[in-house]
Amino acid sequence: MIVTPVTHRFDRPLALRSGAVLPAYELVVETYGTLNADKSNAVLVCHALNASHHVAGFHADAHGQPLARSEGWWHNMIGPGKPVDTTRFFVIGVNNLGSCFGSSGPTHTNPATGQAWGADFPVVTVEDWVEAQARLLDAMGIDTLAAVMGGSLGGMQTLSWTLQYPERVRHAVVVASAPNLTAENIAFNEVARRAIVTDPDFHDGHYLRHGTLPRRGLRIARMIGHITYLSDDVMNEKFGRALRPVDGEDPAAVAELAYRYTTQDVEFQIESYLRYQGDKFSEYFDANTYLLITRALDYFDPAREFDGNLSAALARAKAKFLLVSFSTDWRFSPARSREIVKALLENRRAVSYCEIDAPHGHDAFLLDDPRYHAAVRSYFEHTVAGGAK
Amino acid sequence: MIVTPVTHRFDRPLALRSGAVLPAYELVVETYGTLNADKSNAVLVCHALNASHHVAGFHADAHGQPLARSEGWWHNMIGPGKPVDTTRFFVIGVNNLGSCFGSSGPTHTNPATGQAWGADFPVVTVEDWVEAQARLLDAMGIDTLAAVMGGSLGGMQTLSWTLQYPERVRHAVVVASAPNLTAENIAFNEVARRAIVTDPDFHDGHYLRHGTLPRRGLRIARMIGHITYLSDDVMNEKFGRALRPVDGEDPAAVAELAYRYTTQDVEFQIESYLRYQGDKFSEYFDANTYLLITRALDYFDPAREFDGNLSAALARAKAKFLLVSFSTDWRFSPARSREIVKALLENRRAVSYCEIDAPHGHDAFLLDDPRYHAAVRSYFEHTVAGGAK
Repeated sequence: MIVTPVTHRFDRPLALRSGAVLPAYELVVETYGTLNADKSNAVLVCHALNASHHVAGFHADAHGQPLARSEGWWHNMIGPGKPVDTTRFFVIGVNNLGSCFGSSGPTHTNPATGQAWGADFPVVTVEDWVEAQARLLDAMGIDTLAAVMGGSLGGMQTLSWTLQYPERVRHAVVVASAPNLTAENIAFNEVARRAIVTDPDFHDGHYLRHGTLPRRGLRIARMIGHITYLSDDVMNEKFGRALRPVDGEDPAAVAELAYRYTTQDVEFQIESYLRYQGDKFSEYFDANTYLLITRALDYFDPAREFDGNLSAALARAKAKFLLVSFSTDWRFSPARSREIVKALLENRRAVSYCEIDAPHGHDAFLLDDPRYHAAVRSYFEHTVAGGAK
Repeated sequence: MIVTPVTHRFDRPLALRSGAVLPAYELVVETYGTLNADKSNAVLVCHALNASHHVAGFHADAHGQPLARSEGWWHNMIGPGKPVDTTRFFVIGVNNLGSCFGSSGPTHTNPATGQAWGADFPVVTVEDWVEAQARLLDAMGIDTLAAVMGGSLGGMQTLSWTLQYPERVRHAVVVASAPNLTAENIAFNEVARRAIVTDPDFHDGHYLRHGTLPRRGLRIARMIGHITYLSDDVMNEKFGRALRPVDGEDPAAVAELAYRYTTQDVEFQIESYLRYQGDKFSEYFDANTYLLITRALDYFDPAREFDGNLSAALARAKAKFLLVSFSTDWRFSPARSREIVKALLENRRAVSYCEIDAPHGHDAFLLDDPRYHAAVRSYFEHTVAGGAK
């Protein structure tokens, strides 16, 4: 499945929750499968912090062949014959505003100055993303979505869709998500942001003008994030206290390796893994985008305008729901998903809830767990497709 | 109780686990109470990452009066009439080698160069600390300790005392500790170290020569650490999603505060708290010390030379044990204390174990929980004192 992203431009100003107005914006979109005649089989996928519109399929190389390692971030979930079967559903991947993967964001040019937006790109919220994407659906002539789905932050956005456009969402699939961030979640975001902002190469967010990139800060931010994506169990199983051989050492002799008594070198495998993740991330991710997206996470809290009453907040939703959580996810624990389930049931909404006993922590929502995928497949085959004309 | 630290100098070279040799060293010590005639009532207290020899009592101001806010870090535990009663026990607080609070460490002068050691201070281990302190006991004429006690890293050191000098320790009190670090524990240490080492003001650890301090890195390190010291529950209870009023705003109207839509300002209370903790820490703590002490934590693993068999590793211990853990401590969870308990019981050692259902996370070991303090008091009154002549 070769896919090509398409850019949609919107010239009508978008009023944001902050009070700022984005004069115009672009959204980068990929679609998979075919929209049916009555446009009733569309599934919108919302992405999490560091993902994009590239949800499934492969991008093409110069010869039109699938580019190696270019598969979409949810390719195990979405495609022909996959749990969300693109021979049946028309799936839309769209990059959020403020991102660094093609939709309007801090690395784009601010028309008012002719320079990169940088830190001047307006603060965007989950609600703003939904507004921007509602116009995309209008442009595509899609009135009602068969489903909206997403994991983590994408699950929050899915929930927000059901509240902002209750008539346009028939089903909502919310995976490994939460009704808001806890103090600890905000705390981790804040440390990551401080690492970026206090990097001398950050230049108040205008690093592009200075020809620098705050890579040090991004590395630290990603390392912190990565720890919270994995469970303690899976970290112990994958890395434990194993030492990493230095160049030239026999990896087969790893069990015999001695401590090298350094404070700055990589000695443990887990250190090597984290540094690699941090380095890789700092090569492709934009620092201002990191600030914007973590802030959108911090702010999301639909119960806030209802004095913290989530049940009252979710009364607007009309969709049917599937929620999935993972037992070892300590970032967005099953208890957080259960809060959503409870609030929906208090509103007598149709809710399926699946708590998967999986060792992989928050990352589990991206992995190929057969019970998880069977639950999503069954929901799409029987409930979503059953409701489609 | 006014106390004055005393410096003990040791001119005999100390061979370290790394193979390096410290030609001479100083240890800063405080004592509380009176050593009895047969020197059988001494209790050694081992400190954790950012603490010192100043365990109890107050330091004096210029008029010989107690200096405000100068109480020792375990003052609720140790003193006259406290759980460890200094009218009965002679308590010794000693600063670890490599620290920045008076004992020989990276901020001291390297006799070989006449400059500050900085990053050249040798890597020290928990075992090295015990060796250094055994000489202190020799100098004080104390052959056998009534007890060694400590929390967190101090608990690891206590455990190590029972293995390195089994004949010199009658009782070991190990609080909120673990037999080694998990991969996740090491991961958090590594991110904190990377934040310090990649701070441009770090200068490969020789910042003192450059007239700088890597404060940015220390702030990030401390913020990360602080998150791991608190439980999710207590963070939600103390801070939750509450917003912080900006200067001039009515704090009484906090519940009415609106989001301000910024990415770099403090908006949530938890952000304010963490930044404050980071700033404070960066004013008094040495970056090289942070690297050394977190590495000592990473390395500690008495089961390592027994192919991971903790029971075999602890066979050497002859002390009687009290272990305490706290239900919401996710840094060193109760399961980690139970590993130690199990290994000791497999060796038919006398072990008391107390698992306190407390909301405060790892920090609980420093707090005044009545059940926790009653358990320690009872152990010292009946078991330790009962064994003293």
